[in-house]
Amino acid sequence: MTAHATDRALRGTNSRTSRLDAAIAATTFDRPTLVLDLDIVEENFRALERGLDGAMIHYAVKANPAPQVIERLASIGCRFDAASRGEIELCLSMGARPEHVSFGNTIKRPADIAFAYRAGLQLFAADAEEELEKIAENAPGASVYLRVIVEPSGADWPLTRKFGCAPARVSELLSCARALGLDPRGLSFHVGSQTRKAAMWTHTLDQVAAIWDTARADGHDLDLLNIGGGFPAFHGEEVDPLETYSRDVMAQVRARFGDVAVMAEPGRGMVADSGAIAAEILLVSRKGADDLHRWVYLDVGRFSGLAETEGEAIRYQFETAHDGEESGPCILAGPSCDSVDVLYEKRPVSLPLSLRAGDRVVIRNCGAYTSSYASVGFNGFPPLDVMVI
Amino acid sequence: MTAHATDRALRGTNSRTSRLDAAIAATTFDRPTLVLDLDIVEENFRALERGLDGAMIHYAVKANPAPQVIERLASIGCRFDAASRGEIELCLSMGARPEHVSFGNTIKRPADIAFAYRAGLQLFAADAEEELEKIAENAPGASVYLRVIVEPSGADWPLTRKFGCAPARVSELLSCARALGLDPRGLSFHVGSQTRKAAMWTHTLDQVAAIWDTARADGHDLDLLNIGGGFPAFHGEEVDPLETYSRDVMAQVRARFGDVAVMAEPGRGMVADSGAIAAEILLVSRKGADDLHRWVYLDVGRFSGLAETEGEAIRYQFETAHDGEESGPCILAGPSCDSVDVLYEKRPVSLPLSLRAGDRVVIRNCGAYTSSYASVGFNGFPPLDVMVI
Repeated sequence: MTAHATDRALRGTNSRTSRLDAAIAATTFDRPTLVLDLDIVEENFRALERGLDGAMIHYAVKANPAPQVIERLASIGCRFDAASRGEIELCLSMGARPEHVSFGNTIKRPADIAFAYRAGLQLFAADAEEELEKIAENAPGASVYLRVIVEPSGADWPLTRKFGCAPARVSELLSCARALGLDPRGLSFHVGSQTRKAAMWTHTLDQVAAIWDTARADGHDLDLLNIGGGFPAFHGEEVDPLETYSRDVMAQVRARFGDVAVMAEPGRGMVADSGAIAAEILLVSRKGADDLHRWVYLDVGRFSGLAETEGEAIRYQFETAHDGEESGPCILAGPSCDSVDVLYEKRPVSLPLSLRAGDRVVIRNCGAYTSSYASVGFNGFPPLDVMVI
Repeated sequence: MTAHATDRALRGTNSRTSRLDAAIAATTFDRPTLVLDLDIVEENFRALERGLDGAMIHYAVKANPAPQVIERLASIGCRFDAASRGEIELCLSMGARPEHVSFGNTIKRPADIAFAYRAGLQLFAADAEEELEKIAENAPGASVYLRVIVEPSGADWPLTRKFGCAPARVSELLSCARALGLDPRGLSFHVGSQTRKAAMWTHTLDQVAAIWDTARADGHDLDLLNIGGGFPAFHGEEVDPLETYSRDVMAQVRARFGDVAVMAEPGRGMVADSGAIAAEILLVSRKGADDLHRWVYLDVGRFSGLAETEGEAIRYQFETAHDGEESGPCILAGPSCDSVDVLYEKRPVSLPLSLRAGDRVVIRNCGAYTSSYASVGFNGFPPLDVMVI
């Protein structure tokens, strides 16, 4: 194996992506396009099913709401986690059964709760008294789970305190739900997006188990644990294979929570590696004669799909026809007239020196949080196109 | 004048916004909506025309590409700065004359340059040799101006080095343009978005004048200065009135550059205060019993229009029916299931303690960089709606 081949293998380019590679190679794209392989999505679902042995898998629709993805997943028994009325409607129209769709946003419009309830949804998230009141009024008797705040894990993208209630408030809110006529079934948490190793879950699961035990000791008969998302994709640093990862997480869950009902909400883990963006270089330049770095401008940027490069958090992998030739550091930027539309500057990306305007760049593992993050047309550039194979 | 009335006056709520206020008060909105008053846009154009005495005013379409805005501006003689083929097509379809539209993005697709040239555009921006080559090939003989990098000003949102060439490269690139058969007419720069005071332009104009003089001394017969944008909107800190501001900037330009042709590219300054977002509170909560701050969740967030709150850079002004009552600090967040969809956390916003889910919030001076920054439908929430009055 050559150094270049090793490099490609490490970057996740392998027989698994051969259908994607062939489709991209055979196509002339007028604009940046996300190419999705539904067979990879299905393989990921199967790997999660095996690893999470017995857990209910609710795909986090927000990661990629392409109708074809929802349709394929619904057809093979996947459940769904929806963030809004729009996502609920999408799931139902693509064949999902309403009792398999949870409304996982803790910030819901009253009218959307009522819509979901009428449509047959049975499970709702909450983290505050006012939200429980809205659910009780618009979905009387519904099942709810409480989102709790946990301390940051080692995730690449640790979450803020935006979602969840403090552990000390859990019993009070469970009682509140009960008093409002709801059925408080359990707890949810989020370990942090892109949690690369199953071992990173340990500290979080310990915290949640302590909250769970306290609530049960307070007389709350919990029977549902929602372990949320966090299932990673390869973005340059090693990650466990999906099935192994899931099995290791599930073993830790069972060791702490026994035989309770478990649900999981994989988003990135389900779809990220099913997609690659076919992009193009628009310009290569140096700002001054003595500049160390080239600036490389792509036709896709932070406002047309690559929003997760904010703060350089997610580091995408780039492939070109010149890979293996002499390379050097670049600052990568998007095509808009917006000065914040810069992808990687603090930690430049190494790309071949021979790259020129017009060259194709394939961006790997872009199936999650890209097309849905694209702007309606900032600077007049259309949003990321999607092609499904 | 009561303290509250003074506060409202300071925040820009006055007779000028009475049509906006009346339209918002009279409407029930199903989702967050940007309401735009075209008469305010026209007033702003007139103020700029008077202040920038004789300069060509090219509205930066990216700030707000609502067709009605473009149509009104075209009908009163405004010119346009376009960032893409999409924006050029928009301007032409709304009645702009092609020779009044400049292609100001320094990162252009070759096919889009060719399109613009065929459509009759005559003026293109560049900051690199490869870009000049693309223009020469696809728009032979066209006029170009070079974007130069200037040191950061005191702007609220200073720009990165993404655009522009180093001053030391200017003469070389002008010669390159000439050798390629183009007509290198002058220079452009950007003082920084939201430059609140005309006095903040001084240092930048000094730098550009030095570059200009060097280029002329090198034999380049420059006759066009593009002073870009930077014209501010009121976002909580005092700004000069638009006409005064423009007049002060123009006086500084004339003092340094004499009688050259001047063009300006106001975006925010033209449209920001013409628009207000009608939003709604979805949830008010405290994470724990001892939390100092409430969390207030709106139905509009970073992915549905308020992208400029990134890094808490732009501080919008919020109005509610409870203004004047006792208030306290809040962390403000958007409705999506995304942990980065938080608007103001480091510097909380003071809002009435009586606010509840369902209450309306009017967000002032949102006419620029909102609807065009909205995502295609992140989390299933539709993009910001636009209503023109």
